[in-house]
Amino acid sequence: MTTATNEYPTRAYGATAPDSGVGPMQITRRGLRHDDVLIEISHCGICHSDLHSARNDWGRSTYPIVPGHEIVGTVAATGEGVTRHKIGDRVAIGCMVDSCMECDHCASDLEQYCLDGGMTGTYNGNDRRDGSPTFGGYSERIVAREEFVLKVPDSLPMAEAAPLLCAGITTYSPLRTWKVGPGSKVAVAGLGGLGHMGVKLAAAMGAEVTVLSRSESKRADAEKLGAHAFLNTADKAAMKAARGTFDMVLNTIPVRHDVTPYLHLLRIDGVQVLVGMIDMMPELHTGVLLGRKVLTGSGIGGLAETQEMLDFCAAKGVLPDIEVIAMQDIQTAYDRMEASDVKYRFVIDMESLQKGP
Amino acid sequence: MTTATNEYPTRAYGATAPDSGVGPMQITRRGLRHDDVLIEISHCGICHSDLHSARNDWGRSTYPIVPGHEIVGTVAATGEGVTRHKIGDRVAIGCMVDSCMECDHCASDLEQYCLDGGMTGTYNGNDRRDGSPTFGGYSERIVAREEFVLKVPDSLPMAEAAPLLCAGITTYSPLRTWKVGPGSKVAVAGLGGLGHMGVKLAAAMGAEVTVLSRSESKRADAEKLGAHAFLNTADKAAMKAARGTFDMVLNTIPVRHDVTPYLHLLRIDGVQVLVGMIDMMPELHTGVLLGRKVLTGSGIGGLAETQEMLDFCAAKGVLPDIEVIAMQDIQTAYDRMEASDVKYRFVIDMESLQKGP
Repeated sequence: MTTATNEYPTRAYGATAPDSGVGPMQITRRGLRHDDVLIEISHCGICHSDLHSARNDWGRSTYPIVPGHEIVGTVAATGEGVTRHKIGDRVAIGCMVDSCMECDHCASDLEQYCLDGGMTGTYNGNDRRDGSPTFGGYSERIVAREEFVLKVPDSLPMAEAAPLLCAGITTYSPLRTWKVGPGSKVAVAGLGGLGHMGVKLAAAMGAEVTVLSRSESKRADAEKLGAHAFLNTADKAAMKAARGTFDMVLNTIPVRHDVTPYLHLLRIDGVQVLVGMIDMMPELHTGVLLGRKVLTGSGIGGLAETQEMLDFCAAKGVLPDIEVIAMQDIQTAYDRMEASDVKYRFVIDMESLQKGP
Repeated sequence: MTTATNEYPTRAYGATAPDSGVGPMQITRRGLRHDDVLIEISHCGICHSDLHSARNDWGRSTYPIVPGHEIVGTVAATGEGVTRHKIGDRVAIGCMVDSCMECDHCASDLEQYCLDGGMTGTYNGNDRRDGSPTFGGYSERIVAREEFVLKVPDSLPMAEAAPLLCAGITTYSPLRTWKVGPGSKVAVAGLGGLGHMGVKLAAAMGAEVTVLSRSESKRADAEKLGAHAFLNTADKAAMKAARGTFDMVLNTIPVRHDVTPYLHLLRIDGVQVLVGMIDMMPELHTGVLLGRKVLTGSGIGGLAETQEMLDFCAAKGVLPDIEVIAMQDIQTAYDRMEASDVKYRFVIDMESLQKGP
């Protein structure tokens, strides 16, 4: 496996252009630096960002691009200076593989908001030391700096652990930031990969959870996920009756929409957190904010918070609902994801890569 | 002065239609209920809302309308059940004269957000007991329920105290809600009646205060008001350098504008508070919120907080910069206020009413 320069030739799936689709390709993982860990990837979750990045929907993609930032696997080798992990450990990598580790944010466990050029993305980023492109988890193995490698608790199954690294932490982080707990009333808008984790995590934290949806068909799903109530947002009378009753609306809807109806649902000092990428938000009448309603957003969490989330999910038995697919079925998975035809997260079984394209 | 039914014929200034302008009129103040206080008004501040309401800019005005909700004066009579105030007391009334006093918000000192139909406005409202229209402070005297009558500390001059009742509390309340204090970095956008109080109050709370303005001419004013720094928002390099450095942007700008540049100025978990009425806010790219930037609004404060603010201003010697005018000069004052030609608040000396129209 090891080349003369100790690099690792690696099978992967990626895109070569915005319209290429995602297909098999060969990439090279760097030889281990003293603080690097080599991980043999067992599973990788599929995030909406993967699809958007592969197609360059956000105009920020560089090619070739290998998506995937919900990565779990096993340590296969370690650099000479590595102290946190050893061969055979069950580990994970989320949306970032490096940061400066020195700025005020990094020093405050907020590496995701690194002030020195931002965090280094797990894919579509550039290595901070040699500038080489970073490639994500749609691949056999990955090499990353040990601090950015998290531990997967023994009680978490590997396939189910994968989506925690993005969908899990993205919903866990704002729930913690805004101190959701017993007695909190939380509404979750959007019942996809993020939303379904939001329901489970908020409920596990002791909150009373309501699922918001335009579609009555989600009522049964909401109950199954552990929500205590369902609010049909198309029901004007019900929406009016629910005004001013929630401490938080966790808004996971990933497309442009008017956030005003959700602001109305908030109590005084209640907060609507946007975690989906909705780009330009339509005009908003600021009168709705005047009653001390809060609108904010949140990205992923920091390293310590991500580890805390993994440990919390292990302790509370919080696991995503997943559908495991083969790497070769990625395009079908993307199509179904775009049609919201997945409950609730696709996870790639990376063993499938061994079968070849 | 007292009629057969104990009502009080009262000289006032008000508008009879959106295009009538504000001129002299006669109104009647109700006879004292058991919990009412009669106040002889010495001064009334002029708020932008007065102008908008007189002209029906917001489509919510009923006529005749007597503006004015920054009211100070002296107790001239009390209902039989009044225990909080006695004849001769220096008192004040702000933007509200009643609320249900029983809902969760009223029980939490948040009468301004009364859940039972909202607070009763000092003008353009309707009395909760008999439905009669409420008339504001552009008048000789006012009658109000004792709980909504605040105490003006002895050390506050009456004329300067008036603007505290709206401009003061509207800026004080969010500074308190978001725990501004020593070490906080606060930026104030908009240097009018509210903004100049925001600068003084934040500085008095120990914050490091920066004035934001497009106009370099405000730099000297900012310093005079006690600001520690000035940031020219038209200076792109300076704005970029200031990104991520403020705990709060207190946005007092009362017209439609893009709030994005101010969101960029915030630290992680920093908050932009809108206190001006800007109606429809232009589209916003939600990506700017993702780094845990908070956008919110705030109205006036509750009764207890308003009293706390008056006491704070007395203790710290925080007073607005005012220009005292005669009631007869109201139209000129409105014109100058619209042209931002006032430093920083007009206050009507109500003695001028005695001279007749």
